[in-house]
Amino acid sequence: MGLALSKDELSQYLKGVFPQVHRDFVVEDLTEETITMRLVVEDRHLRPGGTVSGPSMFGLADVCVYAMVLARKGRQSLAVTTNSSLDFLRKPEGGKDLIAECRLLKLGRTLAVGDVLIYSVGSDQPVARASMTYSIPPAGSSAAKFG
Amino acid sequence: MGLALSKDELSQYLKGVFPQVHRDFVVEDLTEETITMRLVVEDRHLRPGGTVSGPSMFGLADVCVYAMVLARKGRQSLAVTTNSSLDFLRKPEGGKDLIAECRLLKLGRTLAVGDVLIYSVGSDQPVARASMTYSIPPAGSSAAKFG
Amino acid sequence: MGLALSKDELSQYLKGVFPQVHRDFVVEDLTEETITMRLVVEDRHLRPGGTVSGPSMFGLADVCVYAMVLARKGRQSLAVTTNSSLDFLRKPEGGKDLIAECRLLKLGRTLAVGDVLIYSVGSDQPVARASMTYSIPPAGSSAAKFG
Amino acid sequence: MGLALSKDELSQYLKGVFPQVHRDFVVEDLTEETITMRLVVEDRHLRPGGTVSGPSMFGLADVCVYAMVLARKGRQSLAVTTNSSLDFLRKPEGGKDLIAECRLLKLGRTLAVGDVLIYSVGSDQPVARASMTYSIPPAGSSAAKFG
Repeated sequence: MGLALSKDELSQYLKGVFPQVHRDFVVEDLTEETITMRLVVEDRHLRPGGTVSGPSMFGLADVCVYAMVLARKGRQSLAVTTNSSLDFLRKPEGGKDLIAECRLLKLGRTLAVGDVLIYSVGSDQPVARASMTYSIPPAGSSAAKFG
Repeated sequence: MGLALSKDELSQYLKGVFPQVHRDFVVEDLTEETITMRLVVEDRHLRPGGTVSGPSMFGLADVCVYAMVLARKGRQSLAVTTNSSLDFLRKPEGGKDLIAECRLLKLGRTLAVGDVLIYSVGSDQPVARASMTYSIPPAGSSAAKFG
Repeated sequence: MGLALSKDELSQYLKGVFPQVHRDFVVEDLTEETITMRLVVEDRHLRPGGTVSGPSMFGLADVCVYAMVLARKGRQSLAVTTNSSLDFLRKPEGGKDLIAECRLLKLGRTLAVGDVLIYSVGSDQPVARASMTYSIPPAGSSAAKFG
Repeated sequence: MGLALSKDELSQYLKGVFPQVHRDFVVEDLTEETITMRLVVEDRHLRPGGTVSGPSMFGLADVCVYAMVLARKGRQSLAVTTNSSLDFLRKPEGGKDLIAECRLLKLGRTLAVGDVLIYSVGSDQPVARASMTYSIPPAGSSAAKFG
């Protein structure tokens, strides 16, 4: 199975449907099984002490798996997150972007699962690990539904 | 074991250290084992289609367990989230605040665990379930550390 | 929506399809939204030190949600576990049965989610918390599939 | 940081403290950051239909991270599982052993986190993904405690 969208097509699509998300996230690399995304860290992502907030890391992991499903299934996909688990491992380095490396572990008829490791740029020690499950509505559904 | 902070003391403390968080979250109720918090839903919490975003629900669950630990351990507590799991069950109703009901399941020497059900105001069907683990550094530590 | 199986019908069905499971687990109570099950603790469930093993607690939580789906959807249901998360909170008391209290949080067309608190008999402090997601194949499928 | 136990020392230690576990599990490979373990699948690990049971896969993932902590911290370590999350991705192939590939993501003062992919022998499509958190009691503690 190949990619339904190239890296550029995926970036353009995300820009169109999620203007705000597109400002935060950059697709750095895309293959049939993996995606690398950057969170461009700005003040609104920070917690007191200069560390990146938990919700920002959640959002980064979530958009990775969503983008991976889009890239494989195409623009009409209406997948919704049904489950997530995250481990916060180390404090991100203040003022550095985050890089998320995501693998697609399963792309089934109704469920997709990906896992993600998040790093501060330039570090090889992960700051967080995440896994995300998406529910994929049947083709022809008029709206995303929760399982 | 009793509360180290009353509901009003907790609200004042959150307001002081997290001015932005305080704008979003309201402590509705507090007991020794439970806390109820409201997410005052505004445009910045929404996704296309009018539903509340995943990161906003993550943030609501996270702040519940953090506030519960503060209320029991006191202001000097420097707990950090180490693990979270969330199930997204139903689409939140657009334009309605979210109410999170949190129970403290464990408050140990080094770990605290809480679970959370999140509802759209006025509904009795949960939109999300979450559990969160916090690591509590030993008293006297100068900074929060990740386990 | 009502129960498709009574407590006795559910117990009989579990006994028929899972003779070994039936020896370990007893349905103590069943309502439309909740189930209470007992793990009859024997030597094979124990770890050195006399505590109940993690896999045994996983199995107890898993069978709760499975039985709850059966009780609502009926015997033809072929649900399979797709996700689980567990927090181990306290050491179970050696030699005591475990009681699991499960709530069905969602019973959708394709996904069911339940959460579970596990106690040593006679204690009101949970030893573990679990949540489980089941994928429910469409009616008429000849076999359970993973999403 | 190096290994406190070699692969052979680790296997001998597991054999001594967990005679039953040692019969099920074989350490296939060990490095400072990774461990590969085999579950020797027998009838007691199976569910009707011939697939490996969820509790058996939970146990395999759990023993991987435990063994990894032992290999790094040494025999005196008394780590206990505090959190786990698992995604079940595909049906394991009946009658085949399972291979678990575990990475140690964090080995802190009080917490260790590992993640695990589980495969049927000879397949490159994972049947399950797991992450496990262990709490490590301070040196000198006489017994493992839950956080």
